[in-house]
Amino acid sequence: MRFELEHTVGASRERAGTLTTDHGKINTPVFMPVGTLGNVKALTNRDLDEANAQIILGNTYHLNNRPGMEIMKMAGGLHKFMNFERNILTDSGGFQVFSLAQLTKIKDEGVHFQSHVDGTRFFFTPESVIDIQRVIGSDIMMVLDECSHYPVGHEAAEKAVKRTSYWAKRSIEHFRNTEPLYGHDQTVFAIAQGSVYKDLRQRSCNELAELDFEGYAIGGVSVGEPPEMIPEIAAVCTDILPQDKPRYLMGVGTPSDILNCISVGVDMFDCVMPTRNARNGTVFTKNGKIILKGAKVKDDFTPIDPECECYTCRNYSKAYIRHLFNSGEKLAGQLATIHNIYFYIWLTNESRNAIINNIFDRFKRSILVNY
Amino acid sequence: MRFELEHTVGASRERAGTLTTDHGKINTPVFMPVGTLGNVKALTNRDLDEANAQIILGNTYHLNNRPGMEIMKMAGGLHKFMNFERNILTDSGGFQVFSLAQLTKIKDEGVHFQSHVDGTRFFFTPESVIDIQRVIGSDIMMVLDECSHYPVGHEAAEKAVKRTSYWAKRSIEHFRNTEPLYGHDQTVFAIAQGSVYKDLRQRSCNELAELDFEGYAIGGVSVGEPPEMIPEIAAVCTDILPQDKPRYLMGVGTPSDILNCISVGVDMFDCVMPTRNARNGTVFTKNGKIILKGAKVKDDFTPIDPECECYTCRNYSKAYIRHLFNSGEKLAGQLATIHNIYFYIWLTNESRNAIINNIFDRFKRSILVNY
Repeated sequence: MRFELEHTVGASRERAGTLTTDHGKINTPVFMPVGTLGNVKALTNRDLDEANAQIILGNTYHLNNRPGMEIMKMAGGLHKFMNFERNILTDSGGFQVFSLAQLTKIKDEGVHFQSHVDGTRFFFTPESVIDIQRVIGSDIMMVLDECSHYPVGHEAAEKAVKRTSYWAKRSIEHFRNTEPLYGHDQTVFAIAQGSVYKDLRQRSCNELAELDFEGYAIGGVSVGEPPEMIPEIAAVCTDILPQDKPRYLMGVGTPSDILNCISVGVDMFDCVMPTRNARNGTVFTKNGKIILKGAKVKDDFTPIDPECECYTCRNYSKAYIRHLFNSGEKLAGQLATIHNIYFYIWLTNESRNAIINNIFDRFKRSILVNY
Repeated sequence: MRFELEHTVGASRERAGTLTTDHGKINTPVFMPVGTLGNVKALTNRDLDEANAQIILGNTYHLNNRPGMEIMKMAGGLHKFMNFERNILTDSGGFQVFSLAQLTKIKDEGVHFQSHVDGTRFFFTPESVIDIQRVIGSDIMMVLDECSHYPVGHEAAEKAVKRTSYWAKRSIEHFRNTEPLYGHDQTVFAIAQGSVYKDLRQRSCNELAELDFEGYAIGGVSVGEPPEMIPEIAAVCTDILPQDKPRYLMGVGTPSDILNCISVGVDMFDCVMPTRNARNGTVFTKNGKIILKGAKVKDDFTPIDPECECYTCRNYSKAYIRHLFNSGEKLAGQLATIHNIYFYIWLTNESRNAIINNIFDRFKRSILVNY
């Protein structure tokens, strides 16, 4: 993997870069659609192409449950399994083990848990999570981390930071001692923890920075803390994380969160918000949110955003999509998802263009005023 | 509307024709995907284009409930509302009034019923159903008919035939006294009833044939009678219905039903089977049905049908779609629906080519052997 910064403004400020892997270029800042189980909910690969998705997410915990690594290996990895030729990043499953799995028991060695799907017992270690991601074949793997709940006391958060650093060390060693399986390179990113505590975030970032990963994520945000803390936490981390490495803020966020965190030097984002909200009838535009189920749009025969070039906006009206939602037709969620993913990727891509043209603040304000 | 028979083999046998309306040509035999509420479930218009759908169905009863005719009129009709530029046929809602609505009370004047959605009281008459379809703007409208349940005694079935003829007469008169609203021509088809009684089917067809409609449907089949009766009933009707008019067998059926009914001179078909079965994980191919949820395909990385040219078969494997079904991902149903609709249209289109080349029997046998 290569990361080149093309444009920076000061030390820890917004930046435009390019990340290059064997599956192609990723222009940053970038939004990565979430494809937990090997598909971005309701979207075909063609929809992803048309949204200009350069990278999508998969999830180690979920893919390990279903289809399982035996099928994944026979398929030749996730790219082939889902026939997706661009980049895939896989989350380690750390977050899911702590939020979704049952009877989770955490030790320094690793995490025991039972699958939420069928109760199967698993034991994840920093090493096994790398091994699983080797089988998945993701371009960017994530280390196993310990993600604290919110709220959490300083002592417990510190323990999680310590263990996350210890696991990160084992992860990078195991990564260096293993090989990709499918002929394309893989890399691994570390994940900083520390909850809302500045000193712990700093400690976590410092400890991880020493391990010389190719990229760094900021984890444990958007887990219930006040939303205004998100860019603050991100800023604490980006102050310390290496300038020449990509920074990925996990699970964030609203259009405002994304813009505010680009401002403090974050390069990569993922969030279920555009897909989940789409299925519930809320779409995002540069002019604000629209509730598609609402009576307000029942006779509005214009597109969600007349200037948007997504398939949905080029072909369908708000009144039609509202009718589909109110009739329980699944096509409604599909069309709204196509739009929302297109918009989120447009948002980060326009941010990138604005950064390169030194007008990011103006662009950001033009969006924030509507949110 | 024009209907030209291009190829016939004997009196009541398989035939290839072309139906032309202001929204383009329809090559017959034709399968019409069902788009009850103004969308074919899970398919975009692009999917319909790629499946070569020349005509789709809408439903008067359902569209009258939602979005309602006020919105429909403001939209400029269903073509504009759903942005579909090819042909639309609307069922009259007769079937739904008798199968779905509540507190249905039938009189010679019309049918009182309550919407199954919200209990709203409606009164459908042969005339009002034409008026509604004028607002929908469907290229082919259907008359209000009385559809008998199965089983039904001869006396009750005869009463329904009588009333259906009486209503058909009122329908065609009202049709002739009203005008299309959106600048394109509309036509109306009659619907023959008579349940499983040969004499009643003959009577119904004779009475309707006298009214000189531009097309005729065979209704009240596939409502619970033994499946082998379907082509028998169809044959009784096609023996009597005018040779130079299109014949539409409503709600039929399996690939075998369709082929067997093409054999007795049916030109048009619709059925929810390809869409509904797709959502449940069953797909149809020229080599038979495949249960995509089954363990048999869990490591089958080939397409549903390697020779099929639909988007799904060009891009995804059975093992991948099985994984999506077993993970509860909606994309599974979308991909299966894309395939099934493509297959059903392929089936009628290949039948047409086979008829023109005088090899229909051979083609039919090559499919039936797998069903």
